[in-house]
Amino acid sequence: MPVNPNAAIEITAFRWVPDFAQGVVRDLRARWALEEAGLDYRVRLLDQQRPPEYLKEQPFDQVPILRDGEVQIFESGAIVQYVGEKSEHLLPATEPDRIRAIGWTYAALNSVEPAILNLLLIDIFYAGEEWAKLRRPGAADFVKQKLKRVSDWLGDKSWLESDRFTIGDLLMVTVLRFLRHTDFVAEIPNLAAYLKRGEARPAFQRALSDQLATYRENEPQQEPEGAAA
Amino acid sequence: MPVNPNAAIEITAFRWVPDFAQGVVRDLRARWALEEAGLDYRVRLLDQQRPPEYLKEQPFDQVPILRDGEVQIFESGAIVQYVGEKSEHLLPATEPDRIRAIGWTYAALNSVEPAILNLLLIDIFYAGEEWAKLRRPGAADFVKQKLKRVSDWLGDKSWLESDRFTIGDLLMVTVLRFLRHTDFVAEIPNLAAYLKRGEARPAFQRALSDQLATYRENEPQQEPEGAAA
Repeated sequence: MPVNPNAAIEITAFRWVPDFAQGVVRDLRARWALEEAGLDYRVRLLDQQRPPEYLKEQPFDQVPILRDGEVQIFESGAIVQYVGEKSEHLLPATEPDRIRAIGWTYAALNSVEPAILNLLLIDIFYAGEEWAKLRRPGAADFVKQKLKRVSDWLGDKSWLESDRFTIGDLLMVTVLRFLRHTDFVAEIPNLAAYLKRGEARPAFQRALSDQLATYRENEPQQEPEGAAA
Repeated sequence: MPVNPNAAIEITAFRWVPDFAQGVVRDLRARWALEEAGLDYRVRLLDQQRPPEYLKEQPFDQVPILRDGEVQIFESGAIVQYVGEKSEHLLPATEPDRIRAIGWTYAALNSVEPAILNLLLIDIFYAGEEWAKLRRPGAADFVKQKLKRVSDWLGDKSWLESDRFTIGDLLMVTVLRFLRHTDFVAEIPNLAAYLKRGEARPAFQRALSDQLATYRENEPQQEPEGAAA
């Protein structure tokens, strides 16, 4: 059971987040990679209002960071790569396969995620705004074009680089999960199957379950009265 | 002189692009890294209308890709990391410095670039649209917040990880260059100096000059008559 208070590796995560974010906060990526690699880790929980000193650990004030002895990493892509380097199960050790897997981590985070997060912001945070209503069709089309690119590449392969799951798949699956409020992935059979295949991995299930358990344990007891005032 | 038609390493680039894109197309990142590492490379030029087969090399239809023997990589982040691994001048070989530099590549491409490209799209491609006018102030504020994070982290250091230039700086500098149509970077003295420091590197200057020379050589001779019809 990788969550272990005495583990050498530490990650940060939120104590609690609202429903729309539960199951997609990026510590899930670190947890999943650590589960796949079979590495124990402990979790340092943060309130959503992080202390100002946290910026010295994470310049963009996000979770997770990972510490492992003198190593301290921020950015989930780098964390997943670092963990992957400890496990051939996640990242092949030799070229050309190694750099292909790493290439897909950048593709997930730079060629796919920005379009998807843009749509998520429109749908969740700015839904009531005029610009969001006007922009939504174009932003949705752009997401669909990105999904088509991934689907066309994937074809009938199990994973992005054929039959071997890598850190590239791990990140791509977590990126696709940001669309769970839409049917966009469901409408593309091979991509829907790919997402399901990723989420079915026991390591993913343990990671997700541990993230959600923390939120359940720290559920705010009641809304503070007059919070909206 | 790293551009060498007989080099083992090949990258792709565009034969010509319009003014707004000259000097920021992403093959600049690959060229710069190769120049820093002192590695020869040859360039395969593509028309802006890429052949459909190019999707088998680059699933998102972008430049550059890099080939080196049996290695074939897409995503400029992965290409820069691959080149960095061939040169301690760009990427420290040992922890904790190695993974810090890699972390900054993901930070540049995932925590900073999306906000900046969003603004660039609003200002260059969608400037006339109603949603873009309504969205612009918020999108600009978001960029400024990202720049403040980078500036606060940088402080009075020369580079993101103190006095040593790495692949993280290389990518961050190219990301900041996407704001050249604004004063946003100029308004933050330490960030403006950082950008200038990056662009002053001889390797950057050679890379930029080679990219621009290709466009000059392939400048369309004249607008086709009736092109707008």
